Formats: sequence, C-alpha cells, structure tokens
Amino acid sequence: MTKFRIEKDTMGNVEVPADKYWGAQTERSRNNFKIGSPASMPLEIVYGFAYLKKAAAYTNTELGVLAEEKRDLIAQVCDEILEGKHDNQFPLVIWQTGSGTQSNMNVNEVIANRAHEIAGKVIGKGEKTIQPNDDVNKSQSSNDTFPTGMHIAIYKKLKEITIPGIIKLRNTLNDKAVAFKDIVKIGRTHLMDATPLTLGQEFSGYVAQLDFGLKALENTLPHLSQLALGGTAVGTGLNTPKGYDVLVAKYIAEFTDLPFVTAENKFEALAAHDALVETHGALKQIAVSLNKIANDIRLMASGPRSGIGEIIIPANEPGSSIMPGKVNPTQAEAITMVCAQVMGNDVAVTVGGTQGHYELNVFKPMMAANVLQSAQLIGDACTSFEENCAAGIEPNQKRITELVNNSLMLVTALNTKIGYYKAAEIANTAHENGTTLKTEAVRLGYVTEEEYDAWVKPEEMTGSLK
Amino acid sequence: MTKFRIEKDTMGNVEVPADKYWGAQTERSRNNFKIGSPASMPLEIVYGFAYLKKAAAYTNTELGVLAEEKRDLIAQVCDEILEGKHDNQFPLVIWQTGSGTQSNMNVNEVIANRAHEIAGKVIGKGEKTIQPNDDVNKSQSSNDTFPTGMHIAIYKKLKEITIPGIIKLRNTLNDKAVAFKDIVKIGRTHLMDATPLTLGQEFSGYVAQLDFGLKALENTLPHLSQLALGGTAVGTGLNTPKGYDVLVAKYIAEFTDLPFVTAENKFEALAAHDALVETHGALKQIAVSLNKIANDIRLMASGPRSGIGEIIIPANEPGSSIMPGKVNPTQAEAITMVCAQVMGNDVAVTVGGTQGHYELNVFKPMMAANVLQSAQLIGDACTSFEENCAAGIEPNQKRITELVNNSLMLVTALNTKIGYYKAAEIANTAHENGTTLKTEAVRLGYVTEEEYDAWVKPEEMTGSLK
Amino acid sequence: MTKFRIEKDTMGNVEVPADKYWGAQTERSRNNFKIGSPASMPLEIVYGFAYLKKAAAYTNTELGVLAEEKRDLIAQVCDEILEGKHDNQFPLVIWQTGSGTQSNMNVNEVIANRAHEIAGKVIGKGEKTIQPNDDVNKSQSSNDTFPTGMHIAIYKKLKEITIPGIIKLRNTLNDKAVAFKDIVKIGRTHLMDATPLTLGQEFSGYVAQLDFGLKALENTLPHLSQLALGGTAVGTGLNTPKGYDVLVAKYIAEFTDLPFVTAENKFEALAAHDALVETHGALKQIAVSLNKIANDIRLMASGPRSGIGEIIIPANEPGSSIMPGKVNPTQAEAITMVCAQVMGNDVAVTVGGTQGHYELNVFKPMMAANVLQSAQLIGDACTSFEENCAAGIEPNQKRITELVNNSLMLVTALNTKIGYYKAAEIANTAHENGTTLKTEAVRLGYVTEEEYDAWVKPEEMTGSLK
Amino acid sequence: MTKFRIEKDTMGNVEVPADKYWGAQTERSRNNFKIGSPASMPLEIVYGFAYLKKAAAYTNTELGVLAEEKRDLIAQVCDEILEGKHDNQFPLVIWQTGSGTQSNMNVNEVIANRAHEIAGKVIGKGEKTIQPNDDVNKSQSSNDTFPTGMHIAIYKKLKEITIPGIIKLRNTLNDKAVAFKDIVKIGRTHLMDATPLTLGQEFSGYVAQLDFGLKALENTLPHLSQLALGGTAVGTGLNTPKGYDVLVAKYIAEFTDLPFVTAENKFEALAAHDALVETHGALKQIAVSLNKIANDIRLMASGPRSGIGEIIIPANEPGSSIMPGKVNPTQAEAITMVCAQVMGNDVAVTVGGTQGHYELNVFKPMMAANVLQSAQLIGDACTSFEENCAAGIEPNQKRITELVNNSLMLVTALNTKIGYYKAAEIANTAHENGTTLKTEAVRLGYVTEEEYDAWVKPEEMTGSLK
Repeated sequence: MTKFRIEKDTMGNVEVPADKYWGAQTERSRNNFKIGSPASMPLEIVYGFAYLKKAAAYTNTELGVLAEEKRDLIAQVCDEILEGKHDNQFPLVIWQTGSGTQSNMNVNEVIANRAHEIAGKVIGKGEKTIQPNDDVNKSQSSNDTFPTGMHIAIYKKLKEITIPGIIKLRNTLNDKAVAFKDIVKIGRTHLMDATPLTLGQEFSGYVAQLDFGLKALENTLPHLSQLALGGTAVGTGLNTPKGYDVLVAKYIAEFTDLPFVTAENKFEALAAHDALVETHGALKQIAVSLNKIANDIRLMASGPRSGIGEIIIPANEPGSSIMPGKVNPTQAEAITMVCAQVMGNDVAVTVGGTQGHYELNVFKPMMAANVLQSAQLIGDACTSFEENCAAGIEPNQKRITELVNNSLMLVTALNTKIGYYKAAEIANTAHENGTTLKTEAVRLGYVTEEEYDAWVKPEEMTGSLK
Repeated sequence: MTKFRIEKDTMGNVEVPADKYWGAQTERSRNNFKIGSPASMPLEIVYGFAYLKKAAAYTNTELGVLAEEKRDLIAQVCDEILEGKHDNQFPLVIWQTGSGTQSNMNVNEVIANRAHEIAGKVIGKGEKTIQPNDDVNKSQSSNDTFPTGMHIAIYKKLKEITIPGIIKLRNTLNDKAVAFKDIVKIGRTHLMDATPLTLGQEFSGYVAQLDFGLKALENTLPHLSQLALGGTAVGTGLNTPKGYDVLVAKYIAEFTDLPFVTAENKFEALAAHDALVETHGALKQIAVSLNKIANDIRLMASGPRSGIGEIIIPANEPGSSIMPGKVNPTQAEAITMVCAQVMGNDVAVTVGGTQGHYELNVFKPMMAANVLQSAQLIGDACTSFEENCAAGIEPNQKRITELVNNSLMLVTALNTKIGYYKAAEIANTAHENGTTLKTEAVRLGYVTEEEYDAWVKPEEMTGSLK
Repeated sequence: MTKFRIEKDTMGNVEVPADKYWGAQTERSRNNFKIGSPASMPLEIVYGFAYLKKAAAYTNTELGVLAEEKRDLIAQVCDEILEGKHDNQFPLVIWQTGSGTQSNMNVNEVIANRAHEIAGKVIGKGEKTIQPNDDVNKSQSSNDTFPTGMHIAIYKKLKEITIPGIIKLRNTLNDKAVAFKDIVKIGRTHLMDATPLTLGQEFSGYVAQLDFGLKALENTLPHLSQLALGGTAVGTGLNTPKGYDVLVAKYIAEFTDLPFVTAENKFEALAAHDALVETHGALKQIAVSLNKIANDIRLMASGPRSGIGEIIIPANEPGSSIMPGKVNPTQAEAITMVCAQVMGNDVAVTVGGTQGHYELNVFKPMMAANVLQSAQLIGDACTSFEENCAAGIEPNQKRITELVNNSLMLVTALNTKIGYYKAAEIANTAHENGTTLKTEAVRLGYVTEEEYDAWVKPEEMTGSLK
Repeated sequence: MTKFRIEKDTMGNVEVPADKYWGAQTERSRNNFKIGSPASMPLEIVYGFAYLKKAAAYTNTELGVLAEEKRDLIAQVCDEILEGKHDNQFPLVIWQTGSGTQSNMNVNEVIANRAHEIAGKVIGKGEKTIQPNDDVNKSQSSNDTFPTGMHIAIYKKLKEITIPGIIKLRNTLNDKAVAFKDIVKIGRTHLMDATPLTLGQEFSGYVAQLDFGLKALENTLPHLSQLALGGTAVGTGLNTPKGYDVLVAKYIAEFTDLPFVTAENKFEALAAHDALVETHGALKQIAVSLNKIANDIRLMASGPRSGIGEIIIPANEPGSSIMPGKVNPTQAEAITMVCAQVMGNDVAVTVGGTQGHYELNVFKPMMAANVLQSAQLIGDACTSFEENCAAGIEPNQKRITELVNNSLMLVTALNTKIGYYKAAEIANTAHENGTTLKTEAVRLGYVTEEEYDAWVKPEEMTGSLK
C-alpha cells in the first residue's frame, strides 16, 4: 500500500506519495490535470531546468543573495537529475498550466526535498534545508524559467540529434551523387518522360535541398540562443540582483557548452515564443525536402517488375504478411510519416505562438513538446533512412539504360537544329506509330541518319551546365 | 545479461530477447526503426488487433479453414492481451512501415509464441503449434487488419473517452445556463461593450456549440464502423473463404459490442483513410468550439482586480512561483493547448490522407496515432475542465451589475423610439463627457426622464427571443 | 475628373464619388482598409445580403413595422442587385472589420440611395426616402445579417457548383468502374507490385471515396441551414418584432428555394461559426479524396515510354515549351493544386473559428471567403477534371496485360496450397534469378506445372468478393 | 459579336479572339481550365516573366544565338508589359498545369504577336516575325522560367510592399515604446493581474517581435535570390549556350535592381520550391507576431466602460449598424484575419512544396500565388494598421493608474523581505476581505506602514533591468 506524507503550499496541506521527492504543487497538478498519458512533459525540459537551476544558484551566490552551502546542495541535485537519477520524479503532463509553473515547481520541490535528504534530514520532517520558492526559485519565475528550459532543451536536441542526423543523410546522398555522376537516365517532369540527366545530378538536387534546410535551421539558432532568464514575472526582472540576467546566461552557456546569451528584450521572451515558431518553421522546411527525396526514391525503386525500377534499395524485412517475397520501401514510409507529423506540429506551434496575451504566452508546454518531437523525429528518421536505405541505394543500370534509350523526349536535342515544330512532329509521329524517333526523323526527311546519331546523344544532353 | 533465442522469417534468422514472445519480424523492425520513443505504437491499436485476430479465428473455424484447437489457442491469447497481460510485448514504433505490417506481425508472433507456451511447449523449440502467418494471419493481410484495428481502437476511444467527456462538460454548462438565466450582464462584441444579455444566454451558446459538435462527431461514426477486414492484400479478398468479410465483422461487433460492419468497398477501405480524416475533422470542430468556450471563461474570470471579473472560477493551485497569492485559469490553458494540438494533428491526418497510392495508403500508423491522441486529449480535457473549472463557476453578481449599468450601449433600446442617429448622438455625448446616457438623453431633449426609465431597461433588452 | 457628393453618417461628412450609390460608411471603409485587391469581398455574399434585406423588409411589413412602399422599394433594389445590375457598387475588401459591418452598411447605403433614385429623387438631395439604418437595416444588426448572408452564399454555392461538380465526376468514374470491370491488372501496395485486381475495382474505390465525401458534405447542411437573422446585436433579438426570426427565415427559404430555418440558438450563431468549420471540414475531406484519385490517375498514365502507362488520358494541349510532343496530366495538376489550397484554407477557417470572443466572432469575412473559394474551386475542378480528363480515360490493354503477367506477387495464390514460407521462397528465387514464378515453383518441386496453371490465375485472384 | 482569328500550335488550329495578342496555347488553357475566377494568375508573375524574357533575349543575343532585331522587338514588348499596357492579355488561372507552362506560353505568344504588330505586320497574317517557342522562349523552358518569374515577383513584393509595411509599423510601435516609457501599468500573465511594468516596456516587446521577424525574413532572401533560369527542361541546361545561366541572372539583376544570381543547383531549383516554403515560413512567423500585437492592443483598448480601457485607439468609423455610438478595433480585426489567412496559406505552400516528383515540382502557380498573397496582405495590413490605428494610440492614464494601484500582485515586492509564504498570506487575505495589501500587511504584523510604503513602489518594480 502506498504510504503518504503531508506536504504543504500556500493553499494548504496535500498528501504526497512518501517515496517521491515532489511536493504539494506537483501533487496538485497530478490530480488536477489527468489529460493524456502521465509524465508526458518531456524529460529534456526537466534537464533544461536542471541546468538553469544550477546556473541560477551559482549566479545568486556570486551576486551575494544565496549562501554557498545552499548553492552546492542545489547544484548537486541538479547534477543528479542530469545523470538521469531522478527521471521518475517528474510525473506531470504537457496539458497543465500554460506557463509550465507546475513543472517549474516540480523541479523546485524535487531539488528542495532531495537536498534536505542529502543534508542528512528526513523528508517531511523539520524545516526544509532549502526552500523551493525562496531558495531554488530565487531570482526566478516560472515565466522566465520555463522558456529558458525549453530553449536549452530544444537547442541541445537540434545540436545533438537533428542536425547530425540531417548531415549524415546529406553526406550519404552526396556520396551517391558523386558515385552516380556518369549514369545517364531519363528525366521526368509531370511524371512524364523528359530529357535525360544523370542519376548523380538527380541526387545532387537532394543534397542541395538539405544544404538549404541546414542553412535555414542554423539561421534560427541565434533567436533560440536568447534566454528569458532574468525577466522573472513579467519581463522587468523584479527581485533579481543587478547583473543577474547576463551572468546566469553565461553560467548556462558554460554548463551546456552552447552559445546561450541573455535575451535582448525580456518582454518578448516571455510573452511571445516566436523563436520556437521560427525554429519549427525551419524543421518544417526540412520535412518538405525530406518528403520530396523519400518520394522520389520510392518511386524510382518501385517494382520490382511492374514499376520504375531504376534503383535498388535494401530489403530489410519481409514486406507483407500475405504476399510472400514482397519487399517495400519502408524507410521512405517511416520518414514521410514523420514529415506529415512535422507539418501538423507546425500548425500546433503556430497556433500556440499567436495566442500570447499581454505579458505571457501560456501555450509553452505544448509548443515546446511539439518542437522537441519534430526535432527528435527528423533527426532519428534521417539517421534511420541513411543507415537502412540511402547508404545501400544502387542503380539498376540495365533498366536505366533501357528507359532512357526508349524516350521520345530525346527529340528536344533537335530543337536548335530543326526548330520546335518539326521536332514535335517527329515525336508525335513516333508516339502514334510506336516507332523510334530516329525512324520517324529520317522518314519525315528532317534529318539524316548520320545527323540524328551525331545530334541526339543522351549523355551529351546532360552536360550543358558542367 | 540479456539472453537471446533464434527466431526466423523468410529472410533468415534473427536473435530475439529470450524473455519476449515476439519473433523475427518484430525484432527486425525494432532494429530498423529507431525513431522517437520506443513502443510508441498505441496499445489501443494492439487491442484492436486482439479483437480482430480472435474474430478472424472464429470466422476461419466456422468457415472450415482453421481447426478448433487453433482457434481456441488464438482466442485465449487475444483475451490475455485484452486483459493487459502482454502490454510489454509490443515494442514497435509508429514510424515503421506505413502499412503497419510490422505491428500486425508483432501481434501474430506474440500470439503464436504464447500459444505455443500455453500448449505446453517451449518457445523456440519444435515446430510452432500455431504459425504466425498461416494460422494467426489466416484470411488476413496487414493491409486489411491494420485499418480494421485502427477503426476498432478509434471507435472505442470515441465511445469510451471522447463523447462521455464532451457530454459531461456540455451538461454542466447547460446546468450553468439554467442557473444563470436571470443574471443580466453586458454583452460584448468586438471585445467592446454592447447590448445586454443574460449570463445564462451566454452559456447557452456554449451548449449549442457542443451539441453541434457532438452531432458532427456522431455523423462520422457510420464511416468509421466500416471494417476493411476481408479485403486482404489489395481489396479483392484473395485467400479468404466465401462469406468471410461479413462474418468476421459480425464477430468483431459481438466481441466489442459496437456496431461494426464490413466495408461496402474494400478498395476504398485499404487505399484511403478518409474515415479517419472525416472523424478527425469533427474532433477539430469540437476543438474550435472548446477554444471559444475556454477563452470566454478565462476572459470573464480575468482579474481579480484589474480585469473583467464577471465570473469566479475555482482556485485549484498556487498560480505563480514568484507572485504570491496568484490564481490562474489553468484548466482553460490546458484545454486550449489541447485545442491547438488537435488543430495540428488535423493537418497531419489530412496530409497522410492525401497520400494513398494505388491500392494502399501507407500513412496508417501516423494517422491512427494522431486520431487516437486527439480523441483522448479532447475527452480527458473536457472531463478535467468540467471537474476542475466549469462545475465551480460562479457569477460575481456585484461586478456584473456594475458593468451592465455603466454601459453606453443601453442606448440601443432607443433606436425604435427616436431613431439610430439621435441615439448615437446621446451615446457619443455621454462618452465624451464621461456622463450617463440618461443625463445626456434628457439634456439633449430627446426623451424625458420618465421615458428613459420606461424604455431603457437592461433586463427587458435580453428577452425578445423568449 | 471624378465628381463627389457629400454623404454623412454619425461621425460626420464624407466625400463619395458622385456616380456611386454607396454612402459615407462604405467610403470610410474603402479608405481605411487598403489591404489587397479592391472589392475582394465575394459578390456571392452581397447577393446573400440582397436576399435577406428583401426578406427582412417583407417580414417587417408583415409584422407592422415597415410601410409597404418602403418594403417595395427595398425589394426592387434587392432584385436589381440579384440580377447583377449593381456589381460595381460593392468596392469593399475582405480585410475590413471582422463583423462585416461595413459590407452590411454598403448594402444598406446602396439600397437606400438607389431607392431614393427610383422614387424620383436626386441622390444626395433631400431627406433619404429610405434610411440605411432605420429602414433597410430595420430589425437587423451586422452581427446577424453578415452570418446570414454568408450561410446563404455558401449553401447556394454548394448546391449549385460544388455538389453538382462532384457528382458529375463521381458518375463518370463510376461509368469507368463498370466499363473496366473485366480488365485484370496488377495491384500495387507501397508502390510495389502486389496481387492483381481489375481496373474497374480500382476505380470503384474512387467512387466510394466521393460517395463518402458527398455524404459527409450533406451531413453539414443542416447546421448551415440555420440562420442567425433575428438575433440582432448580441443574439437576444433586441429591436425585433415578435415572431420576426422565424418569419424572416421562411421568406429567405422562399426567395432562395433552399431549406433555411431560423437558428435554434442565436448566441451560437453570432459568436461562433462552427457551421463554416464543419462544412469546410467536409470540403477538406473531399480534397483529400480528390488528391488520391488524381495522383493515382497521373501515376497510371505516366510515360509514355518510361513510366507505368496503364491508362491513356486525353492530350489537351502541348505540354512543354521546350520538349516537343510532350503531353502532361495537367488536369490532375490543376485539381491537386486546388486540393492543397483547400487544405490551407481549412487551417485559415479553423483558426478564424477558434477566435470568437464573448458575443461575436470577428473573423467572419475571412472565414466566409475561404469557404466560398474552396467550394467554388472544388466544384469547378471536378467539372474540369471530368470533362477534360476522366471522361476520356482509356485502358492501355497491352501494357496492363504485360505488367500483370510479369508480377511475382501472383505467388500469393499459392499460400493456401503450400504455405506462406514456401511461396516466399519461390518468389525470392524468381526475383534473384530474373526468372518466372512458374519456372521456380516447379524447379523447387513445390508444385507441378499443371497445379501452377490451375492455381495461379490472375483473373480468379480478383473475384473473391464478388 | 466577338471576332476570331486562327492560331495554331503543334496540336492544330485554335480560334482566338481577334482583338487579343495571345495565341493557341493560351486559348486552349482558357477553355480547359475554367476553375475559379478568370485571370487569377497574379500579374506580378507576368511582370516577372517580362523581366526574364527581356533578359533572356539580351543574353541570347550577347551569346550569339539571337539576332539583335529580334532582341529589340522582344525587349520592347517586355517594357510595354512592365508599363501595364497589356494587363488584359493574360487571362489564365492559377489552376492550370502545375509547371505554369501555359502562362509561359501566354507571355511568349503575346510577345510574338505584339512584336509582329510592332514590326508592321498584321497579326495572324504571314509567318510570325518572332516565334513564340524558337525565339521568345529560346534557351528556356517553362520549367526554369516559371520559377524564375515567381522568384522575381516575390522578391520584388517583399522589398516593395511587405518589408516597408512591417518597418513602418515597427517604427511607430517603437516611437510609442519610447513615448510610453514612464507610464507604469499593471502587468498581466494568464490574463490575470501580475506585477507592474511600463506601457513602453510592453510596446518594446512588440518591436522586438517585429525585429526578429524582419531578420527571419531577410534570412530567406538569399535562397530566393537564386534563379532557376538556365536549367531549361530538367536542370541540365539543355539547349542553352555556354555561360547563359550566369549572364541571364546578371541581366535580370540589372533590370530589376535586385541581387539575383543563378542558382547553385538547377535540379533543386526546378524540382523543389523550398525557397518559397522558407520565405513563407518567415511570413507566417510575422503573422504570429502581428496576431499577438493586435490582440493585445484590442484587449487593452476594450471598453469603453466595461473592459480594460488602458489605451485609446482611433475611432475611424461607426462600429455598428444597430448600436449607436459604438466604436470597434476594426484595424486589429482586419490584421488578425490576415494572420489567419497567412497561417492557412502556409499549409497550402507546405503541402505544395512536398509534392515535387523527380525533376519537377508541379504546384508552382498555387505556391507562388499564396506567397504573393501573404506578402501583399502582410505589407498592406501593417501599413493600414499603422496609419489607422497604431499611430493614434494614446494611453488612458487615469484608468492605467487606477488599475495598477489596485493590484494585489504588488505584494511580490515583499518576497525578498518577508518570504514568499508570508507575502502570499497577505495577498490572499486582502483578496478575501476585499481590502488593500497595505491594510492586511500591517494588520498581519509582517511589515510596518513605513516599510510597506518604502518597499512597495510600482514604479520601482519596473526598473530592475534598466
């Protein structure tokens, strides 16, 4: 049977499970917000809090408003949290107060109680060694800590998961672009046969897309690097010592090894989360690019006998529970599902972003959770797609050659020799008769066989820009 | 140290954790799709599978293609799954193959191995008592089972969580509409003072919104009640015995006690998931309604001293980690965050819905997961909002009376007496002079005091439609 | 040189172009809202106003608050507007006040001045025969007229353009489903070869999608048929004679020949536009369906030599300015662009729908314009796609037969004879060796030639559900 | 009666209105795509074409493939188009082929026929002086011209309308931030009373939002400055003379006076339009910011008697057709409707962006039209909002002072003196008793009157960060 202890806050007493570090406000939230799965608040945000609580403690001590012993106790618990030792102490959900106050208090309470324990006391007995509000939360408000925590969490995720995943895929696609640079294939526009290009050129377009996407994502980092901390309740910095905001950002930068700075304008940093809208906009752009790339790859790999079949992708698992021997482009499916999710998340983040009122946007947990999910999914999906699909892509040379040689669009090479109208006549006639371009070109008397062979060379049609 | 056993599929051998029931294909998927959190495939879909696997077994036996002992073994494991005994046997993620084949195989493999165990054998030893493909998956394909499983999961969620939650909130708001029917308050349009209405009338609008939303959601159920099962690989029903599709739907209806029927057109049921788009459209409409309602309530409750303050909502927790004594409309924040999420999910579902190709839509797991999340969040958030906010709403009669009596828009009652232009002159003059309407109406000579008192009665301005 | 006359409203005098019927408030709006193209407010909404102004005049007269001569003058101008005689008298934009007040006044002013003219007076001279506010707008407010006007406009558009367009396309696709019922082709799932079906079955799925979509759209009409008129300023019906709301809806129903009724709850009808959200949700579902259908058709028509090429679609125009003889699936492109627009519009409508406050939603013109655009585009695009593409679709029998016979997935027919595992071995071996299924099936000793021929018949694999 | 002449293309003869310059392909498109309003293709794109056709002519001549006389004729017509002389010659719609081929041909045909006329010939008589395909379209394809035209159109729109509009509003808001820097007012978080700040600080947050938005928009310009021209049909540059792509971009830069360059990767530039996705993402971010700003302003201006009433905004027009004397925040309504539209457009652009296949994205006209609309609407709405609302905002000093002095959240200043818990007790007691903070603070014995007056000074609570 669960045992309880009594914790209290400014509203009175609350029964809390005796084996947990959290306190009254966490427990109230747990009971008042039974929405969706428990503990849905991303742990990454909790870790973001751990960094900032430690940084705040160091700053408070350095500026003379917190005792060193208290700082050290707070810092020790923050380190434990960052080591993952207290992951089960954060039971709250995304769908709580929109300022994330309750998650801020969850962290404050866990730090206070665990510090009490480290100080050799019994939790729930005696005055708290460290007060959740007056000590752990000193010089802070939920209104500046939660946005700081979410910026830290998202920035780290982008640097550790998203960007490396995209780069990994980009590099492999670039390797393929180089490896396939001499493989001449039919081009397709409107899904219809068009003039030829090389398979390498096709892949180079994918690389360019991801390069633009990475650049777009990098462009959003400066906004994200600005931290609200120091603004406290409404952006004025009430109850912070002089110099606090700059110094606390410096500590966070040091602890995370990321280039965080204090926000230029704290009112914007609390009341609007356009930084998240901006970053997610770039993630959405990358989703758009990945969708194009994955779609192309599965179209080119379609078949094996009745599709396009120009490339071969790895067969990673049986594709069907009923059709024996079937292999499917499953990595393309996983990543395009991720793309659709990211497009949806973009709307959620956007809608949340519009709805700040006066000094505070209260869609913070929802916005942060969506950005984190998108960042994780894109990073993971790129890595998975790279490892299990892109790296193993091979051209089906026989099929490629067959398709390009067959194409009526090679006639385009004759435009500059005989004009668009006559060239069209050749193509239309060959199409109607089911014959070759050469046959009709010569039969119509527009070119000789020799001219045709000299002028219509697929491999030379791909090279004008080299 | 984890022990492993060897499982095999048509591609060869795979090492699987010895203490798990799943087999080769599940393990392949686990390794090939490390995208996002593990086991993100909703358990509700697994349970949907359990219902349909049992129903398929009964149908196969009844139609003479499966032995009774096999049926009973399969059914027994399905029942265990539905009792929640094997929740940790389904480690796969949403971001797998878009047909959900791997989750179908996960279920097939768990049933087969657990059945082997029930039959007194040792997993991994001897020929399987029950074959995952040939027995558990008999007369099925992932392509018809996954959509069936998702329809079951979503329909149940709507009936058990979403609709009851909405109705609960709707009824409480209706109680308030009745209770507040005589409280005359100022109306507001464009956020500006307007003619009066009763607080009960205001709440009746919320009730009407939810009634329309419930109707819209009910309208989508017939499409959702149509099950793909029996279509197998591409909708033709290949490898099913005659009469299978109708009978298996009957069994599912019986086991779930929900009005499922076989889909009129199996090609649509596999290749398109417009039923999910349709249902989610209704969920999104409800999110739109809830957003309006929650926004109004927090605006009316704003203050306590410098806002509107017409209603008082329950104070459930301390609202601020820095501002003592602050209380916030946290339930309104939670539910509007849910609304934003649902709006985002709608785009994800929509995008997924557009991208079926030929005989299959391969955005199934993503679509299903989003619909399930929205359905859960709306249901839970309505319940939470009802219990922790709506049920406790009280009018602040003093403030309401003060605001309505002060309003310049009461002048509208004079339109039919002295015309719009003179009425406007009265209102404009009172506004400029900071005086009352009556003062200026009389001073301008348009009405006598007696006429004013007789004609301008807020309580009578609310009743024309009664 | 433009001549001006002076018009006035409650704020004072305004110079108005002398050759226009509009008055002071229209002119103010024209000057204050220079956003986007002029006159962007859809004319359909103006016509909606014309119906309701006439209906209001009849109702007011019948209920004794408007003289018959005034009624007749108002009705005469309304009829002129509906005949399109005054289309250039409505210069306002969507991006005005969110209640549409200025467009309501635009209509009121045009009616008043034109009536003055009909009555033999000179516009701008003498007291107005008919007052814009006190007569034309009698028993009305912008807050109930604009939503009424938009419901009328949208309902008519759906009935006259959208639904007929969808039905036209649906019927042609159904004709094709019947015509192609015996054409056995390869099925494709995950874009990969799968078991066969008939081309008719494939098209029957499209028909089913549109049938569901039409049903979903019809489901939204009852909400849309409810008219706000009679609610006036805030929903209470202030300044309306008894019985007005029911009677005015009856007149509107009579004049439009559509089943309009007065709204059950006028507060909902002013403060929320969930009816538009609901209707647009169905339009979005139909866009999802059309996207799938158009994508399939262009994939199947891809080629002519290096694509799938299973169907032939009409060649309506030269497809390329550089590639002679190229023909493209341009109708599929137009309709899928429409689908993307509708998906975007859905978000605009949704966001607008969430943002009602208190007694009024002030996103009315934007919401209405988006629903009207989507309704028009879907109707027109279906008609265009039907006439210029669907009606002319022909199977490419030679190609279809070649592709189906080649497929390795025919092996699925052997599952019930030799089991999934052996069948997979046959398919995998044939794939690796580039041979036929039959060759390998016999070589592996799993079936005899006779058995193979008896069991693997594409045409029989499509018929299980018949 | 309309007269016709015969024009022909590679498919045969077409009747074209005799008084128009367009030719066969334009007329075919007009007949085949009757979707939505005629001539919906934005004229800005036509002008973009005019720039590029002229640039292509100059480049072709310079590189020796076009005669000077032809160049000059082409250039002359392009200049006429840019002067707006031929606006009625472009009747096509957005919903045509997704490559915009028909609009490219529309421009080619108009230039050719008008050039013929300039050359002293009769249109429709004799061989064309200039051929639409072989001369006007020389070294071009729709596939590289349309994206070039849309980049030109959008870049110009951003520079001429969008960015100036935003800057204008940003500067006025900044002026207000400075002007209001000493006006201490109550802060509000969660819509509830919070600690004070200055009205200037509040406005500085809006300025910061727009500064970030402008930066984000500027970040997207380099991608947009890259032109596809020179890639021709599939990105390989087939049928272009050496050096063409770089030179033609140089001419376009010169003619438009904008920093255009040739695209690094032509395959990306044809097959993906991530540049538009990227730019629109920034527009959407700005919409998010504007929505917050406009919402705040209308909330603060709400009243006049029963709302917040802290600021006064200009009264530009009568606000109601029924409520005399009503004034509404109509500019805020117009701009937030624009924001909702932009959010919707973002989804349309995103969906279009995902759907490129192989060498071409065929959602070009839809994507371009949406970006242009958003760019126009944001620019215009900012300008309108600045001129008609923001510039005239004045503080309501009396009301502001009343509200801030009344606030219970001033108690926060006592946190650092007596601790959060005692401060909360003071606030809660004052709230319950309807008394002042000072009364209860002293009564509870936590501070003396003198201490209270010394410590709780609203004006000092706003200054910590200065």
